[in-house]
Amino acid sequence: MINEFFKNISKIPYEGPGSDNPLAFKYYNPDEVIGGKPLKEHLRFALAYWHTLNGSGQDPFGVGTMIRPWLSISDPMEQAKARMRACFEIAEKLEIPFFCFHDRDIAPEGTTLRETNKLLDEVVEYTKDLMKDSPVKLLWGTANLFSHPRYVHGASTSPNAEVFAYAAAQVKKALEVTLYLDGQNYVFWGGREGYETLLNTNMQLELDNLARFLHMAVDYAKKIGFKGQFLIEPKPKEPTKHQYDFDVAAVYGFLRKYDLLPYFKVNIEMNHATLAYHTFQHELHFARINGILGSMDVNQGDYLLGWDTDQFPTNIYETTLAMYEVIKNGGIAPGGLNFDAKVRRGSFEPEDIFIAHIAGMDAFARGFKVAWKLLEDKAIEKHVEERYASYREGIGKKIVEGKVGFEDLEAYIIDKAEIKNASGRQELLEAVLNRYLLEA
Amino acid sequence: MINEFFKNISKIPYEGPGSDNPLAFKYYNPDEVIGGKPLKEHLRFALAYWHTLNGSGQDPFGVGTMIRPWLSISDPMEQAKARMRACFEIAEKLEIPFFCFHDRDIAPEGTTLRETNKLLDEVVEYTKDLMKDSPVKLLWGTANLFSHPRYVHGASTSPNAEVFAYAAAQVKKALEVTLYLDGQNYVFWGGREGYETLLNTNMQLELDNLARFLHMAVDYAKKIGFKGQFLIEPKPKEPTKHQYDFDVAAVYGFLRKYDLLPYFKVNIEMNHATLAYHTFQHELHFARINGILGSMDVNQGDYLLGWDTDQFPTNIYETTLAMYEVIKNGGIAPGGLNFDAKVRRGSFEPEDIFIAHIAGMDAFARGFKVAWKLLEDKAIEKHVEERYASYREGIGKKIVEGKVGFEDLEAYIIDKAEIKNASGRQELLEAVLNRYLLEA
Amino acid sequence: MINEFFKNISKIPYEGPGSDNPLAFKYYNPDEVIGGKPLKEHLRFALAYWHTLNGSGQDPFGVGTMIRPWLSISDPMEQAKARMRACFEIAEKLEIPFFCFHDRDIAPEGTTLRETNKLLDEVVEYTKDLMKDSPVKLLWGTANLFSHPRYVHGASTSPNAEVFAYAAAQVKKALEVTLYLDGQNYVFWGGREGYETLLNTNMQLELDNLARFLHMAVDYAKKIGFKGQFLIEPKPKEPTKHQYDFDVAAVYGFLRKYDLLPYFKVNIEMNHATLAYHTFQHELHFARINGILGSMDVNQGDYLLGWDTDQFPTNIYETTLAMYEVIKNGGIAPGGLNFDAKVRRGSFEPEDIFIAHIAGMDAFARGFKVAWKLLEDKAIEKHVEERYASYREGIGKKIVEGKVGFEDLEAYIIDKAEIKNASGRQELLEAVLNRYLLEA
Amino acid sequence: MINEFFKNISKIPYEGPGSDNPLAFKYYNPDEVIGGKPLKEHLRFALAYWHTLNGSGQDPFGVGTMIRPWLSISDPMEQAKARMRACFEIAEKLEIPFFCFHDRDIAPEGTTLRETNKLLDEVVEYTKDLMKDSPVKLLWGTANLFSHPRYVHGASTSPNAEVFAYAAAQVKKALEVTLYLDGQNYVFWGGREGYETLLNTNMQLELDNLARFLHMAVDYAKKIGFKGQFLIEPKPKEPTKHQYDFDVAAVYGFLRKYDLLPYFKVNIEMNHATLAYHTFQHELHFARINGILGSMDVNQGDYLLGWDTDQFPTNIYETTLAMYEVIKNGGIAPGGLNFDAKVRRGSFEPEDIFIAHIAGMDAFARGFKVAWKLLEDKAIEKHVEERYASYREGIGKKIVEGKVGFEDLEAYIIDKAEIKNASGRQELLEAVLNRYLLEA
Ligand SMILES: [Co+2]
Ligand SMILES: [Co+2]
Ligand SMILES: [Co+2]
Ligand SMILES: [Co+2]
Ligand SMILES: [Co+2]
Ligand SMILES: [Co+2]
Ligand SMILES: [Co+2]
Ligand SMILES: [Co+2]
Repeated sequence: MINEFFKNISKIPYEGPGSDNPLAFKYYNPDEVIGGKPLKEHLRFALAYWHTLNGSGQDPFGVGTMIRPWLSISDPMEQAKARMRACFEIAEKLEIPFFCFHDRDIAPEGTTLRETNKLLDEVVEYTKDLMKDSPVKLLWGTANLFSHPRYVHGASTSPNAEVFAYAAAQVKKALEVTLYLDGQNYVFWGGREGYETLLNTNMQLELDNLARFLHMAVDYAKKIGFKGQFLIEPKPKEPTKHQYDFDVAAVYGFLRKYDLLPYFKVNIEMNHATLAYHTFQHELHFARINGILGSMDVNQGDYLLGWDTDQFPTNIYETTLAMYEVIKNGGIAPGGLNFDAKVRRGSFEPEDIFIAHIAGMDAFARGFKVAWKLLEDKAIEKHVEERYASYREGIGKKIVEGKVGFEDLEAYIIDKAEIKNASGRQELLEAVLNRYLLEA
Repeated sequence: MINEFFKNISKIPYEGPGSDNPLAFKYYNPDEVIGGKPLKEHLRFALAYWHTLNGSGQDPFGVGTMIRPWLSISDPMEQAKARMRACFEIAEKLEIPFFCFHDRDIAPEGTTLRETNKLLDEVVEYTKDLMKDSPVKLLWGTANLFSHPRYVHGASTSPNAEVFAYAAAQVKKALEVTLYLDGQNYVFWGGREGYETLLNTNMQLELDNLARFLHMAVDYAKKIGFKGQFLIEPKPKEPTKHQYDFDVAAVYGFLRKYDLLPYFKVNIEMNHATLAYHTFQHELHFARINGILGSMDVNQGDYLLGWDTDQFPTNIYETTLAMYEVIKNGGIAPGGLNFDAKVRRGSFEPEDIFIAHIAGMDAFARGFKVAWKLLEDKAIEKHVEERYASYREGIGKKIVEGKVGFEDLEAYIIDKAEIKNASGRQELLEAVLNRYLLEA
Repeated sequence: MINEFFKNISKIPYEGPGSDNPLAFKYYNPDEVIGGKPLKEHLRFALAYWHTLNGSGQDPFGVGTMIRPWLSISDPMEQAKARMRACFEIAEKLEIPFFCFHDRDIAPEGTTLRETNKLLDEVVEYTKDLMKDSPVKLLWGTANLFSHPRYVHGASTSPNAEVFAYAAAQVKKALEVTLYLDGQNYVFWGGREGYETLLNTNMQLELDNLARFLHMAVDYAKKIGFKGQFLIEPKPKEPTKHQYDFDVAAVYGFLRKYDLLPYFKVNIEMNHATLAYHTFQHELHFARINGILGSMDVNQGDYLLGWDTDQFPTNIYETTLAMYEVIKNGGIAPGGLNFDAKVRRGSFEPEDIFIAHIAGMDAFARGFKVAWKLLEDKAIEKHVEERYASYREGIGKKIVEGKVGFEDLEAYIIDKAEIKNASGRQELLEAVLNRYLLEA
Repeated sequence: MINEFFKNISKIPYEGPGSDNPLAFKYYNPDEVIGGKPLKEHLRFALAYWHTLNGSGQDPFGVGTMIRPWLSISDPMEQAKARMRACFEIAEKLEIPFFCFHDRDIAPEGTTLRETNKLLDEVVEYTKDLMKDSPVKLLWGTANLFSHPRYVHGASTSPNAEVFAYAAAQVKKALEVTLYLDGQNYVFWGGREGYETLLNTNMQLELDNLARFLHMAVDYAKKIGFKGQFLIEPKPKEPTKHQYDFDVAAVYGFLRKYDLLPYFKVNIEMNHATLAYHTFQHELHFARINGILGSMDVNQGDYLLGWDTDQFPTNIYETTLAMYEVIKNGGIAPGGLNFDAKVRRGSFEPEDIFIAHIAGMDAFARGFKVAWKLLEDKAIEKHVEERYASYREGIGKKIVEGKVGFEDLEAYIIDKAEIKNASGRQELLEAVLNRYLLEA
């Protein structure tokens, strides 16, 4: 294990809830077996390269604050390699089994795309070597199609066809790289794929082009033998005023319209869910019942702020209900729980990276155990099953089986006295959740 | 024309922008011909029975305030008929060509559905008679599946199969009534079709049942020969925490999934759009390019409040951009512009009904003229066309025609120098819009 | 103890976290002594008459749903007395030591104010008698100045001086009644004291009149010897578009401007805090450090909904942080924790009243214990103290003591090398909070 | 007039509403006399240095896009001087009479504050020279206390006393510079003066320190003879989670508490108003009636986005209602209308700077004329006056004059029949506003 950048931090031990060591796990014991599988295989955590290795703490009103040991290396390629070593050091010390990156996170750009690809190849080769000696794997790759000025008006939805071509070439390369590093998924987040104002936008052409682009990706993946799962990451807004992949429902309709449903699932980010005014659980649940729950970007927003704060996830209600959906989904593999989260701008010391990941991993470990117990005991589910019992017999069964129409139903009900309903028991179920959360 | 309830208000004249008569139109001249058709045929205004005839001014913190002449009639059926006469009096005096209603708006309920239907029939017959002597027609009918306690947990998405049956029987009757009164559309607004908490909800069954219900409606309409357009009205929340018909994109995905797209369009409400954090224009535009723009509930929300205020629409930016979409849609027929708007609780005097409709109709008339001029001059469109010119030739044309893939595009771009984009000119287009708005 | 309306529910026992009896406390043991005082004296829970006795489940889209045994009593005065008996039955069975009410909650209105007062007196006398045999006391009284149509444009801020007079007479009576029943506080919630549109509003006169009104209340309280604490309850909006008592900061500035600070504190509602885009803790904290934290309306909103949902409070993060402020405030007395919360419209069965209060009381009991332990261990506070250490010595001490000005500070800093800051450690503190929450 | 950076753009002419020249005013005729004063003296526009000269188009998801002629100058001081020349070129060509800047906008930083001040002095001297030959004056100066990492936890509210000292020294210098350049105001915007989490915050000490800091500024201004108006600019959040200067009401209470009211007014930004869930008019109105309306940052947010978009203001409703408050305030001098607005990231061409300012200036010119006409005709005010007539006679007069108390008012009302209110006529007033907006 590399011990170069964080010399005073050793492998993070599991010490249990009694410990007040900031650099120890209290709830995440990676080898604890639940339901026949160790926790680390249930949770499939991933480190997000962009925030953890590249994040500077810059925000719209201030420059970077982060103290990072590799910033003293001035040669861009040497620094890029150092960052990659740091990535493995962090992941291994935290026992995080995966990492995720954008093409531009790991290597600098050249003057032409050909030069850029060459620089990228050099870092990819270096990474491949590091991976040989490391248990850390690539959860997913992706291409950054939003930071460069060329993407100012979009990538595959740019009004400029040359930009579409550039984005295509960039994704082609990112797919190849992901395949080469045995990435298990490939993600599309459409950071500029939306509009600022309808006054200057041809939405129909832009949506058609987005679909064309994704079909090209599917075709190329087939050609090169990339078998990983394609994922779309919905977000409603920011940076653009409206993003086309607004929420899971919008993505679902899009995939159906353009015959992309067989090839794509969604990578759902907690903070993106709340920016779309949905709970994280809602988005996961909706994806799950529609068969497209693929992976998760775990972080946390602030319900009272209107932008993507990407905080480390520590709210145990959220982690429990998310894990509830994952367990009901039969697990999240080949996806995982990617920490698309950044330490606060004020948490600029190197150890904050570890502290923050520990906070998030503990919160998900606890959430997983609570969810597992809830499901094992059917503490919530038995209420739900009973609540819908009327659809398993009599007129309800006929409705579900498609055996009745309006006329039958009218005949059934027209002379009946008033219907009796039962309480929905929301407060009871919230109290049950609390008890499990505290006692699980 | 009836002159019973508002004796001191005569037919509202068009007096032009110079008039300061509160009971005259300043911009809406129903017979003004634009593009070969009188304004009233472009706009197809409708009066919303529930707000205008039944609205009491009650809110969650206070009882009704509205002064309405028919409230002194104590017999429920006599009052129901009086309200219907008032409906025609208002619509004719304002030259509003359509009205819309829920089944329960126009007649009281009995003890069983059979009795309720009988009461409904009596008022429907009465209405049919009134319509013979009136130019006012039925834009759409609908069933109220949200006010009665039986619908506390939903109608077609209730966990109780008997409630599903009741809702089915109620829609069956509402369809028959709509057909009998020559209604041109039939609307579904799923006021309780959603959930309060996922803890007690089987979303998958509920969504399946919602689809089953709509298919039954389609089947029954075919059977009785109802040829009107079916419409779904999206709303993200309120009364429920989450409504399944969240926004146009959610409805679109739902219609595709359940093979309902051939039968349904959307009725888009301005205030519902903003509650879903979309502009009204966005929702109209998205529906239009997907071929499902059916009708509109015109009102206005308050961007700083989080509930459905249903104010009368007076913002000319909103009305202009809405009419822009309608004109590009080739008109809104067989749908229309239904004033799903209520006078403020403090505007409780009878004449406020007229004042408020005049304000809304003037705002849409002006908006229509501005939009017409913008399109006639291609003041906005010429910018848009030019902006996407690259997709009409060269590599862009090949992309659109599906003639290239990732490899071709990489070859095209890999050695190119940096791409040149053009300004999106948002501020210029906003200034153009202002000039048209003020000078049209 | 009355056992009339909820015969199958006996006094709610404390059974501890191992119990899954829905009608038992898991965390609230009223007699558990912490810091020398039983929990019930720390928490000072109160039952809110309006929601629990009068709440019907009506919402803007549907009529009432609640099944309540007293609804079969048709005589208004007999029903009023029955509701009061039910109030004591519920409070005693739940061991809630206080109740709170509006004048109009407990008795119907007559034709004139004189008649209304007579009806009120009868129920007050009846209540006085019930209180003799009960441990349940009056936490606070208040007047409903928002439901009746006369208050459509405000009460003390109405444009109509007669409405001001009526409101004054109503508060006069409510103060007398509160005194007579030994109420420990008197609350003003300005439900209509705000505006719908600035277009028709004289805000300056309205604010002056609001202050005049409150001064009259202070004068009259002195005159009759009412020594209870006056409280203002902030809320930003709903029912009005803008309410003058927007948040604690707005109320604080208002009290200062009009020389009312000596007489008033605030009653802070959790859901009102979030509607103003503040956390509950923020509002409590700001009030505490300004010496005006008086009492609390404990409930819970939905961060993704824009209206006052008044849910029962079950989120343990919220209850913990609220109790943290209360303990730092030296307790909340003579205020208390009033459950201004309503069972969901779908939780319409009588036992849901008990289930919901248990959920809320357990959540606050747990929150209190967590907060107590956090403060006892200084688990959070020691970080805060250390963080601001620089103001306890050297240049920082001089700043705080007012011994330096801009020139001194410039001289101190102008040639210094860059300043070193320390991490704010937000993620660490969130992890500490989680550990205490789960392990306290 | 400098003609160096925008050679193909000459002085922007007024061409009237008939023109479709993008580089001409349609509504802003600076010399048009209204009420005895030219429009330019009513409006007192200012150019915001940071956005217009320094803005790069960078956002949290992408790098800068702006094409700016001075970016080719690599020497920092030469570039700084070039930007200053460009500032005068833009302001003069647009006939904008004022500019505003932060200390760090106009000159780069050195290693110590002493060195930084020296660099600043050089650019200030250069500016002083440019001002000699230009009609453009300094509306206000300010210090950037938020961008540098030293301010990560706040400036005057930093937990680190050395940071307080640095901020003090920086404001001392900024005050001197503002005085030297004859600035008419000095602004404090507390970009980091707030908190990220209460868990690590001593709010009481921070607020006390903020007040100490402002008193030091007042003292130093007296000492050096700076007579300009001190202004605080409220903003609720962003960059921090909660900013102490949340809204005008919060600032007002703060100023009263700390005896700062005699020295400070507010600089109200439109987008900050909406981020605090107030209308711009509300904030202006509240400041006006409390005597603290000092100046305005004119821009526009997007009601559906949750961050500070700082768009150029083009909504004529907003500009009209803002100007309404300014006229009622007797004008805005010595404050002005500062365009704290940035061209969209996609509007990156140099001419967009001119187009955007023209759009904003035209919108405010039109708004001013509409507001003037509304007030001249008392089109709105006569309704308001009549609405509150009851406070000018009888019992209302006695209330206002403090001659009655609760007992008198009870005696007056207790036997009266129900009170009659009048409609608030909101819809009518909105229609009146529309007519003036379109016809003024
Ligand atoms: Co993400
Ligand atoms: Co994010
Ligand atoms: Co509607
Ligand atoms: Co609505
Ligand atoms: Co309350
Ligand atoms: Co509330
Ligand atoms: Co500003
Ligand atoms: Co701003």
